[in-house]
Amino acid sequence: MNKFEKAQKLLQVINGDGWLIICNEDNDIHSRYLLGVGSHALHAIFIAADGKHKVLPVVMEANMIKNSFEEKGIDAEIIPFNSLNDFVEKLKPIVNKPKIALNFGENIFESDATSYADYIPFGTHLALQKLAPNTNFISAAPIIYELRSVKSPKELKDLRNVCKATIELLETIPDMVKVGMTEREVMAKLEYEYSKVGKPSFPAIVATGKYSADPHHNSSNEKIKPGPLLIDTGMQIEDMCSDITWTYWVGNNPPEEFIDAYNALYESKEIANKFYIDGTPSRLPAIKCREYLAEKGYDHEKLFFHGLGHALGFEAHGVGPRVSWKAPENSILKENMVYTNEPGLYWIEKWGIRLEDDIIIGKEKCEQVTYNPKDPIVI
Amino acid sequence: MNKFEKAQKLLQVINGDGWLIICNEDNDIHSRYLLGVGSHALHAIFIAADGKHKVLPVVMEANMIKNSFEEKGIDAEIIPFNSLNDFVEKLKPIVNKPKIALNFGENIFESDATSYADYIPFGTHLALQKLAPNTNFISAAPIIYELRSVKSPKELKDLRNVCKATIELLETIPDMVKVGMTEREVMAKLEYEYSKVGKPSFPAIVATGKYSADPHHNSSNEKIKPGPLLIDTGMQIEDMCSDITWTYWVGNNPPEEFIDAYNALYESKEIANKFYIDGTPSRLPAIKCREYLAEKGYDHEKLFFHGLGHALGFEAHGVGPRVSWKAPENSILKENMVYTNEPGLYWIEKWGIRLEDDIIIGKEKCEQVTYNPKDPIVI
Repeated sequence: MNKFEKAQKLLQVINGDGWLIICNEDNDIHSRYLLGVGSHALHAIFIAADGKHKVLPVVMEANMIKNSFEEKGIDAEIIPFNSLNDFVEKLKPIVNKPKIALNFGENIFESDATSYADYIPFGTHLALQKLAPNTNFISAAPIIYELRSVKSPKELKDLRNVCKATIELLETIPDMVKVGMTEREVMAKLEYEYSKVGKPSFPAIVATGKYSADPHHNSSNEKIKPGPLLIDTGMQIEDMCSDITWTYWVGNNPPEEFIDAYNALYESKEIANKFYIDGTPSRLPAIKCREYLAEKGYDHEKLFFHGLGHALGFEAHGVGPRVSWKAPENSILKENMVYTNEPGLYWIEKWGIRLEDDIIIGKEKCEQVTYNPKDPIVI
Repeated sequence: MNKFEKAQKLLQVINGDGWLIICNEDNDIHSRYLLGVGSHALHAIFIAADGKHKVLPVVMEANMIKNSFEEKGIDAEIIPFNSLNDFVEKLKPIVNKPKIALNFGENIFESDATSYADYIPFGTHLALQKLAPNTNFISAAPIIYELRSVKSPKELKDLRNVCKATIELLETIPDMVKVGMTEREVMAKLEYEYSKVGKPSFPAIVATGKYSADPHHNSSNEKIKPGPLLIDTGMQIEDMCSDITWTYWVGNNPPEEFIDAYNALYESKEIANKFYIDGTPSRLPAIKCREYLAEKGYDHEKLFFHGLGHALGFEAHGVGPRVSWKAPENSILKENMVYTNEPGLYWIEKWGIRLEDDIIIGKEKCEQVTYNPKDPIVI
């Protein structure tokens, strides 16, 4: 069953007449997810509950999308448009149906927010309402959640493949990195390898010295110095992303406090893994991880200031319950959801350490797809 | 005057109390534009008409943003939050003001659409309205248009620099490309060079053979074959992007019909340049370009199925009047706007040629910042 067929089936559950994605400049990930290619122009994708699916691309992208559908065996009518007015005229009969799902989130500022569905811009939604005043537009969040949170066997296979390829690259870092190279150069080398077979999941974070304490550091022209080197990176091949962090030590003799923190994080990660199990409250792995860090004497509330991880999938930040220790109690993990497990300890303006692996939630135990080195690698 | 100060000044024109940007996962370009770093978490930026500007980042990004502001001399209060609830509580007093500008577009399906401002997702807008029921939320489109359409001397300097660096790379293509390499490999090599000094403006389009007829082709595992090779690429350094297309011929003796089409496009581009002048209707360059192609016997309506170019700036697809031959007559070019000039001729499933240069609108004539080779380069 391809993604169009799956989505069609899910439409029955919410009793919708269709799922409409309107996208411009690649601003809704579900476009690339469904089309199989990146579009950089205005377009609409309509998954029909009954009848033929439809795509409205700009003329110059029509052939590209047609070829992608042929390759993927997707049966959808392609209706090219040649002006904004033409687009609107062609969209009108498609959107004038009783109940259409759109990509918007609900309760965005509340604990049950469906932010993962919040894509359609406000102005575009307004224009759609004007175009189809009698249509009941509902949130596509339930479709997106079902499509993307629990992974298919094909997606799990893609995950194992992309993780293997990423790990093989991370293992070359000690040979590749030299003191005096810039963070950007290391990022560029990694992304060069990714781009030959896939694409970066996100801009690689290469953080030397004190920058390792900024978890979302933007790789810069800073030169690699002796001390900690944190690399958080991943790539996408087919339908899955990897997302892995290794923290190296550049230069001889990492100090004891670095090694101690590394070891504590490694152990805390192993402990968290034991609770990445089907049916477990999603906050449990984080709670257990933090309990261990506290035992070891780390002020985790101050030093570990982000969630334990996130769902992983077609995007690095995927769809699934939050795995923060503050997630609601009734939020539950399910078999074949995919997560990162990435505890970190950060001393601002000094250094930070993060160890991140990717795991698959299992019935009895998780499958650990990537492995951080047990001891810090010294470069 | 930094961007925060410029934006503050523009707020007076629309009589707003502030400009609020709410962004998640880098989904509003104005976040990176203002912060100077890419954020990958929920955050809010508030440009105040009076008083202190404010940024609400998640705790783990606070230090990174603080350092960026120090480097850029931006005076703004950084108020970190540690949970969604905390974010909402801290946002509430900021947003409860009479008139706040938000990034949404108006008349999205009409010819005067301000799509370039359409960022805030529908669900987030709904949540804001609930949080501040007495606030009058207005579109930030006028601020964005003034900030981004006409370029500052610093931006023009950045443009010349980034264009020079990109052209130097394109000149190495004949030595770099070999028959049998994949399109992805060529893309990866280009982007590797970009990432060392900046970032790709967009995923490079490397299109061999018949794929050159798909203007937005996604570089694939297709191997470079004798025949046309279209490369559409660019990078960003500081505040400006380059966006350049060269079409090469791989193998000996390009056929006459290829050379003829190349020459016609080259000439049509030169003609269009003459109308990229302050005060000119924005559709004029395209009309003149198409008239020339028609004279040369090309069915331009069928074979040249996209606009002549687009505004260029902090993003490859920037902000400014459309330069399509179908743009409204009263849409006028202004000095120091920056555009691409990129006529193309495409024979679907056979081949395509596009020549794209970047230009600055001048008082008397445009400044052509990049130059396509006059004759096709044979690899």
